[in-house]
Amino acid sequence: MPTTAQSAQLSDTETLYLTGFTLACVTVLVRTFDGEGAPLIACLALSGMAFAATYAMIRWLGPTFIKAGLKGRDLSKVNNNHYIPECMGSICAVVYILTMIVFIPFPFFKDIVVATSGGGNRDVVMNVEFVQLGRLLHKFPHNKLASFLSAIISLHSITLLGIGDDLFDIRWRHKFFMPAFASIPLLVVYFIDFGVTSIVLPTFLQPYLGRELFDLGILYYGYMSAFSIFSPNSINILAGINGIEVSQSIVIALLLVFNDALYLLTPYPHPATDSHLFSLYFLLPFLGVSFALLIHNWYPARVFVGDTYCYFAGMVFVVVSILGHFSKTLILLLIPQIFNFVYSTPQLFGLIPCPRHRLPHFNARTGLLEPSVTTWEKDKQPRPIIAQALRLLAQFKLLRIKEDQEGRIEETSNFTLLNLWLVWRGPKREDKLAVEITVMQALLGLFGLFVRHRLALLIFREDNLNITSAV
Amino acid sequence: MPTTAQSAQLSDTETLYLTGFTLACVTVLVRTFDGEGAPLIACLALSGMAFAATYAMIRWLGPTFIKAGLKGRDLSKVNNNHYIPECMGSICAVVYILTMIVFIPFPFFKDIVVATSGGGNRDVVMNVEFVQLGRLLHKFPHNKLASFLSAIISLHSITLLGIGDDLFDIRWRHKFFMPAFASIPLLVVYFIDFGVTSIVLPTFLQPYLGRELFDLGILYYGYMSAFSIFSPNSINILAGINGIEVSQSIVIALLLVFNDALYLLTPYPHPATDSHLFSLYFLLPFLGVSFALLIHNWYPARVFVGDTYCYFAGMVFVVVSILGHFSKTLILLLIPQIFNFVYSTPQLFGLIPCPRHRLPHFNARTGLLEPSVTTWEKDKQPRPIIAQALRLLAQFKLLRIKEDQEGRIEETSNFTLLNLWLVWRGPKREDKLAVEITVMQALLGLFGLFVRHRLALLIFREDNLNITSAV
Repeated sequence: MPTTAQSAQLSDTETLYLTGFTLACVTVLVRTFDGEGAPLIACLALSGMAFAATYAMIRWLGPTFIKAGLKGRDLSKVNNNHYIPECMGSICAVVYILTMIVFIPFPFFKDIVVATSGGGNRDVVMNVEFVQLGRLLHKFPHNKLASFLSAIISLHSITLLGIGDDLFDIRWRHKFFMPAFASIPLLVVYFIDFGVTSIVLPTFLQPYLGRELFDLGILYYGYMSAFSIFSPNSINILAGINGIEVSQSIVIALLLVFNDALYLLTPYPHPATDSHLFSLYFLLPFLGVSFALLIHNWYPARVFVGDTYCYFAGMVFVVVSILGHFSKTLILLLIPQIFNFVYSTPQLFGLIPCPRHRLPHFNARTGLLEPSVTTWEKDKQPRPIIAQALRLLAQFKLLRIKEDQEGRIEETSNFTLLNLWLVWRGPKREDKLAVEITVMQALLGLFGLFVRHRLALLIFREDNLNITSAV
Repeated sequence: MPTTAQSAQLSDTETLYLTGFTLACVTVLVRTFDGEGAPLIACLALSGMAFAATYAMIRWLGPTFIKAGLKGRDLSKVNNNHYIPECMGSICAVVYILTMIVFIPFPFFKDIVVATSGGGNRDVVMNVEFVQLGRLLHKFPHNKLASFLSAIISLHSITLLGIGDDLFDIRWRHKFFMPAFASIPLLVVYFIDFGVTSIVLPTFLQPYLGRELFDLGILYYGYMSAFSIFSPNSINILAGINGIEVSQSIVIALLLVFNDALYLLTPYPHPATDSHLFSLYFLLPFLGVSFALLIHNWYPARVFVGDTYCYFAGMVFVVVSILGHFSKTLILLLIPQIFNFVYSTPQLFGLIPCPRHRLPHFNARTGLLEPSVTTWEKDKQPRPIIAQALRLLAQFKLLRIKEDQEGRIEETSNFTLLNLWLVWRGPKREDKLAVEITVMQALLGLFGLFVRHRLALLIFREDNLNITSAV
């Protein structure tokens, strides 16, 4: 009979480390109240606290989740007869959202001081009537606050919808469009506050169209909404082995943080600095909760993340890139996800039969993962054109085909990046596969950022970093 | 073996009515785009659509909830061996939140038109650069938008926490404070945008303190946060019979709508008109989803509402009354809830043993509800002082006590308003009890509003309605 492993208690060492770490974070946080407030430091401190809280809650709540039926068995293990908690990404999402709510006042601390006491002098507190009359209140950056709040609402919505999915197993064709709902608040506020729907044209197109900017108008909102559907779903389908959902999300987040840092380190105040600060405020706590989850979800997994985490992670990226106006950069970081999606389409759209699960096949004898396959009965062969396409893919090493003596297709590897990787690199242990995919994601992402900041100057007149001189 | 009743399909008549109703609402909604936009009409139309959506989804998703383990049996029925879906309030909350998100642009439609085309002339659409330069954007009421968004975040948070409670049965002492988290975004935005922490002093106190207003400062935030803990919990504990959670919430919402309408009907623009419009925007969709739930939850209940609904309803009231600055009015409407809470304290705080369930006892022979009781063993009598207090309460008809010949207490009725009502008015059928409590709530509320607008003038110099002349 399946049993539940792992204690729900933290060990003494864990308790000691987490408590010490939290206290250090609290100290840092309190110190940011001196002077004008340092929102980025406060955000770092809160991210640390979010890490500790998530780490502890994942352990404490594990048995509760199992009792509530949120549990699953890890079929890629030899000893797979015990249940582990499922949908633990919802803990990440809830801790993250509460952290962001608590964080709301920090980026506006300086503005609040100005609005309530005039000129940043906190000793002279003005009377309420004066503030109310709006003498200083107009200085408050309400539009930034609205962006911040709309971002939280979008993340809230995706979390609710994700939990609904994990609870009720919503059908694929219904849930595919769920993230579009979650993006509405974002788009509304984007419309009101920025309204920028024009994109910079590549230099070689400019002479023909006679301008630098091209206004996409309403199409731009369609693009953003499609983007917010794609990002969460693309992370959700690059899944199936321990740790991969979280590690790919962490890599993308780290690359975005690196990109943001580039803008903060420019010697002069860059026009995009604010958007990138905003992006950091959302990414750092995300990294905090994700690392806590990864520790528990890494091979051999002691918890599963659930669809909630994938949707939530994808939406964090959508939020920061839309409000930071750098969605093209994000696309460069999602190349493995885009490849995986495009590669999956023959099965997703039903051209080729799609089994319920396409995760790599666990060979209990060797303890290694192998590509999982779709089998073709002798009397249920693919149509000739599809058979030809399959053979062509196999020739380009984009598929493994097994044929019988008479040239009938017996089985084809399933169309996912993970299976293809195993076709290329041979059977692997689960954690080795996760490491390789993560490293590949990181290298491709770094290359993407390099293209973004260097090579982009070949087709656009200037880069956001204004390093035209470098080329 | 327990079976599930009721079809998940809508009958043909229901489908016809709901479709027709929805189409009518869509038509009304589309027509509001003519002219300057009529947000209140749009809100009404969306509320109608929210009603239809909730009604249909409660039916469609019933079996899904049961399959996911969210189910319960109705013990106050003779034939109680079938499961009905639990936690259906979460459907209300999700539909409500999506409705509010879709509604975001409507109250700001006029402002958006001004900000994007100048002077409300929508034919002349200004170019993006112009809008971006902020020539007109400063006219946009960003502070109102921020209030709106923070209200949505608060409701989102309480929904997430409520669902967590329904799933995991969080302990009483943990969940009691959950709503405080949900109120943080509200308080932050209140602080930034209003900052009004002073209350009007009663006229008889003014000579002593030498002023009209008294500034509570940080205490005011403590008050609001206590208030946001009280309201959701107070609705959650006046529960236990079919329909009562929803019907009391609907009565409170209707009374608030009535109060709001008073401000809109004043001949001149009243300074508080905007807050009360805001309140209507949040209450009308709430009424829409609540009526759809009530139809299914009314005696004999075909679904249960779950803690989610109670928390969510309580938080809607908190949101509108804090952002509308009329929390004192809400307190007047919560008198039965306040009484129920105060009356419950001896059991909640453990002075008197508190059984797991205190809902009225169902007498299967008569089919009527009777007061449920706490029994006292002969060797486990209450301490003398408590016994005395219990007898005193019984003398004032605030308790029913059963004693044996030797004067030992055998049983006392449980300390809830529902049981007390049954002590006063005798055994009743479940729906009759619900009707009586609801009518009592409505009458007390109306009386409260009367006090608020008429008698308040005896202790305050002027009423919000400025009807000083009426006294």
